[in-house]
Formats: sequence, C-alpha cells, structure tokens
Amino acid sequence: MKFTLTKQSKISKARLGVLTTAHGKIATPFFMPIATRGAVKTLDYLELAALQPRIILSNTYHLYLKPGHELIKKAGGLHTFMQWSGSILTDSGGYQVFSLSDRRKITEAGALFSVDEDGGQQHLLSPEKAVEIQLALGVDLLMVLDECPPYPCKKKYAAESLALTTRWAKRSKDYFEKKLEIRNWKLKPGLFGIVQGSTFKDLRIKSARQLVELNFDGYAVGGVAVGEPREKMTEILKWVEPELPKDKPRYLMGLGKPEEIVAAVRAGMDMFDCVIPTREGRHGKLFIWRRDDLRGKFYVTAQLDTARFKSDFSPINPDSALPVLRHYSKAYLYHLFRTNEMLGMKLATLNNVEFYLELMRRIRQGIGKGRL
Amino acid sequence: MKFTLTKQSKISKARLGVLTTAHGKIATPFFMPIATRGAVKTLDYLELAALQPRIILSNTYHLYLKPGHELIKKAGGLHTFMQWSGSILTDSGGYQVFSLSDRRKITEAGALFSVDEDGGQQHLLSPEKAVEIQLALGVDLLMVLDECPPYPCKKKYAAESLALTTRWAKRSKDYFEKKLEIRNWKLKPGLFGIVQGSTFKDLRIKSARQLVELNFDGYAVGGVAVGEPREKMTEILKWVEPELPKDKPRYLMGLGKPEEIVAAVRAGMDMFDCVIPTREGRHGKLFIWRRDDLRGKFYVTAQLDTARFKSDFSPINPDSALPVLRHYSKAYLYHLFRTNEMLGMKLATLNNVEFYLELMRRIRQGIGKGRL
Repeated sequence: MKFTLTKQSKISKARLGVLTTAHGKIATPFFMPIATRGAVKTLDYLELAALQPRIILSNTYHLYLKPGHELIKKAGGLHTFMQWSGSILTDSGGYQVFSLSDRRKITEAGALFSVDEDGGQQHLLSPEKAVEIQLALGVDLLMVLDECPPYPCKKKYAAESLALTTRWAKRSKDYFEKKLEIRNWKLKPGLFGIVQGSTFKDLRIKSARQLVELNFDGYAVGGVAVGEPREKMTEILKWVEPELPKDKPRYLMGLGKPEEIVAAVRAGMDMFDCVIPTREGRHGKLFIWRRDDLRGKFYVTAQLDTARFKSDFSPINPDSALPVLRHYSKAYLYHLFRTNEMLGMKLATLNNVEFYLELMRRIRQGIGKGRL
Repeated sequence: MKFTLTKQSKISKARLGVLTTAHGKIATPFFMPIATRGAVKTLDYLELAALQPRIILSNTYHLYLKPGHELIKKAGGLHTFMQWSGSILTDSGGYQVFSLSDRRKITEAGALFSVDEDGGQQHLLSPEKAVEIQLALGVDLLMVLDECPPYPCKKKYAAESLALTTRWAKRSKDYFEKKLEIRNWKLKPGLFGIVQGSTFKDLRIKSARQLVELNFDGYAVGGVAVGEPREKMTEILKWVEPELPKDKPRYLMGLGKPEEIVAAVRAGMDMFDCVIPTREGRHGKLFIWRRDDLRGKFYVTAQLDTARFKSDFSPINPDSALPVLRHYSKAYLYHLFRTNEMLGMKLATLNNVEFYLELMRRIRQGIGKGRL
C-alpha cells in the first residue's frame, strides 16, 4: 500500500490523503462498512458497489473459523469469494481477545480460543497465524494481533498487556516481512500496528513510540470504545497523535457515532469502522441528515416503529443516490419493520451506510475548504 | 381485464393465451410469486423487476390487517406502495378461512376472524368487504371470498359449504359490478370465481356450473393443496375443466411443485401461485435445472447445508439472467447459510423464483412447439 498526505488543516489536526492499495485509491478520511463474515449484512455485491465504500472491513477470527482461510484462498481470495473489487482491511482477531474474554486464554504464544461452535475445540491464534490467515485471505490491509484490555483496567495489567502487545507486534512484522519476500507483489499489502495502553498517558505514549520504532505501514488506535467515558477517548487521541508519523495513515478502531467520527478526524484520525450503521439499521433505526455543515445536531436518528412514520408517504431519503431509497416511502419501510419483512432491514442498512459514506464525503469537503 | 386464447394444444388440454390488465400483458400459462404483505420476501422492487414476473400475488387478509387498505389507498394503491409496476392479483382471504380455522367463525354474513395481533379483536370479512378491500388496494385481479373446506371433509359439510360459497360469489359479483359503475376505468379489473366442492365429483361440477352462470372474468380452482392426495387433484381438474369456458383464464390456487404445475397446465390450467420457491429458498433449498424438455426428473433440489457445496466454487446458476447468481459461487452461498447471513436467503429466493418463471417460459415454448 501507499499513503500520500495531500492536505493538513490549519484549524485542527484533520488531514486529507490518498491511500492506494492493489484494489484502488481511497480518499482519507474514510469509513469502512463491516462485512464480518464476508458479507455486509443484508447486502449483495451490486448493492455494496452502488454505495461505493471503496473499502470494507472483514474479520480474521470469524473467517478463520468459517469457512476457513484455506477455503477462501482456494476460492481465489476473499475479494473473489465475496465478489468485492474494492479494498479490504481485516482486523486481526484482537477484538475477539476482548469480546470473547470468557472463552480465551492469553499466553506468550498467542490467544487460545475455546470455540463453542466447534465443540469447545481449542484454536491458538498467534501473531504469526493472524498474519498468515490475512495473507491467505488476500486482503489489502492487515492488522497485527494485539491484546485489547477491558475498561476499567489496573495499570499493572495494562502495562504487562502492552508489553505483550508490543512483542506480538514485532513478531507479526517479522513474519509479515518474511512472507512478503516470497511473492512478487504489484502493490504490497500494508500491515498496521495497534496502539494500546488503556487510559494511561505514559503507557499510550510508550506503545505508540515502540510501534513507530518497528515502522508499520499504518497505525491504529485500539482499546477504545470498550466502555470508557467519551472524554477518555479524546484524551487518548491527544496523547497518541503527536507520536504518530504524519506520512502514515491513522486508524481509530471501532468508532463511532457521527459526531465522534467528526471529532476524531479533527484529532488527526484518517480511518474508521463501526457496526453502528449496519446493526442499528437492522434494528430499525435510520440516520437522517439535518444540516450539512457537520456542526451541532447535524443529523437525527429515527426509530422506524414510531407511529409518525405510519402514513408518511415521503421517500426514505429523497436525496439518496439509490433508487430504492428515493422511491420507497417511509410508510412502506414502517410497514416492512412492523411485519418483520427482511427487506426492511436491507433498506435501513442501505440508508445508514450511505449516510456514513456521505458523512465522510462532507468531512473531506470540509477539510478541503478549510472549514474543518 | 381481457383474455385472449391464442393456441390450444392438440396433444393435451394445455393452452396459450394473453391476459391483459391495466398494468400490462401477461402470457399464459404464468406463475405469480407471492408478496403476502406487499413484498416478495427478501426482494426489493428492482430485484423483482429484474426477474420479470409480470404479475405477483398479494394477500387481502394480511394487508387489510397491516397496514390497512385505507392506508394503502392513501399511498396511491398497492402498486405505488410497493413500487411494483406490473400486475397484481390478490387472494380474497378465503385461504385464511381455511388456514386460520381455529380463529374464525363462518356465518352467512361472512367470516368472523378473531385477530391475535389485534388483542383478539373481531373482524368480519364479508364478500362485499373483501371486494371493497381489493378495490381500495387497486389490484388488477380480484378473487371472491370463498370457504375453502379442509381435507378430508364430510360430503354434507362440503355441500353446505359450497352452497354458501356460491351465495357469497353472487354477492361479490353484484357488489363488484355496482362499484365498478362509479369509476371510469381504462381497463376494468377482473373478478374471479372460485370452484369448491372438496373431492366430490358432483359438487365440483355443480360449483363450476353455478359460477359460470354468474359469468366471472376468470375461474379459479380452490380447495386443492389442502392435504389431499395428489391423484385427487388430478381428478378434480378432470371434472372441473370441461365445465369452464374456453375463453376465460383458469387459475389453480396455491400449486405447486414444478411437475405438478406441468401436469396442471396439461389439464388446462393457465395461472399458478405458490410459496414453494420463496419459502423453500429461505430454508436453503435450491431448484436446479437438469434438462429442459420438462419430462422425467427435469430438475433437482439441493439443500444448501449439504457439505458437498462447501468447496463448490461453480456459480449458483451459470445460466441465470441475474449477475449475482452468475457471479457468486455455491460455496459462498453455503457459507452464507451456515453463518445465518440473510443475504443467503435472498440469493436462494432469486434463484428459485427465476427457476419457476423459467419453468413457465419453457412450458409456453413447449405448447407453442406442439410438444406439450
């Protein structure tokens, strides 16, 4: 991958750039819709392509279990398997170290998961294995395996965890470099380090410095959106950002609400992913624009089962680029949710992903025009 | 509506024809995908249009309850509400008289339903009300309210039920004619009578004669596919068909498997609807062509969770008109079902509805070429 910084805002730490992978150019800051198991839930590749996200996120851990990275490799890689011609970033399984904490053991070697769906069988996800899986999937951007500590977390635990994460990062990088030598790449995939350190300033700074020393293609800020108060996230970014090289992309993992993304862009972040638009869409929540300057309450959310939609025959979104959102009415969408028609979930997903991608366009425009 | 018979097979009772409604011409014999609540489950209007069914079936009873026919009328009718520009036929609620038999009482006035979702409130569906609802929906083809008796059924019950169905048919027709006088129609909608009489020859013939006397726009054969053995259905068609006028369309309600549709076309039927392609698709069953002469075992069904699909990287259907079915592999579809991704249900639905519509094309071609 390649990254070029094209503009630095004068009024904030916001930046414009272009990230290039073997699957195309992506303007930063960008948002990645989530395709955990190789499908953005409810959408086929034509619908996904119509949204033009340019890049999506898939999940190493879940694809390793089903259908298995070897099978996806045989299928011609994840791009072919899911018929997606844009770029793909995969997380490393590090988030599952956090979210499945009752079913895993951390050792120096890696994370040992006991998999229910697999009859309780144990699977060791080592830093090397995580890279191997992601290379087999053939994705454009890989993440190192890390330990994402919970919040709150004792400083002693956070410090030890961080040391392990750094050792794992080094092993990931070594393995990745060795593996990359074997093949001839048109454009090499990129490997990202992940800054941890919980909510402790010195640990966060230490983590960032150690990773920068290892010289990754990009840097992620992990261990946020794990239950900590929102001010903490702002603080963490303030500590970490100055440590990160300007000429590498910065990825804030798992965030967030639209206003949180705007704030993180101002704090110097370039890349985002979040389940909010897709998951909340399936639960009947719509994101709707109110004003396009990204200030104040620039959007509202509306729950589709509220009676005021019942006879609202206006389009789901009159400004959408998608015919289905311009032509179906809110009343129809209300009816679909009320009668449990799956089509409703798809339409709300389309609406929300389009909202998030439009949010990123407006953010980039704002930076371009010196307003952000 | 208008119906023109264009060809009568010399080797069977199969026929070719054209049914014209205010929403277009439809070649007979045809199949109607089911949109019970105003959506063909999992499909949006673009996907539905790509399949080109020309006509779909919706459900009077369900749309009356949610969102209500008055609301749909306000939306501009069912076509506008669901963004479907082809023709629509609605059943009358007569099937719910059968399927919800524990929650309804039959009286001379109509069927009194006690609706759980509505706090047990009682709703009277009279023959007049059923017509009124369907006219409010603005559909092209309406069905009279009938009583669909269960199988098996005592002759005395069947005879009394039939007498009631005929009285209801007369009331429906009178009400329909009166209502039609009010508006200026480009092309009037059509009203179908429904032949009942369970599995009794004399009752079936009597029913057909009584309805023909009332001069409907088309005739349906109801009360089949309610649990009777398949030979019974063949017999019923043999009794009823000679009683029906050649110049009116004949609709076999609720059928069936592909080979049953072929047999019913040979027995002189023109119109079909069935939940099989959509429902079985959602349950992971695919219809796959084997040979196109419609003889012997001309298709197979395959359950998507069988392991042989796991690494089958061939297209879902290489001959499909739909890019998603040509480009996604069976292995991907298998993966989607195994991980409960809703997208899998949609792809299987598309595959199966396309199969049924292709079946009807091959049937029409077979009749056209004198082979059926």
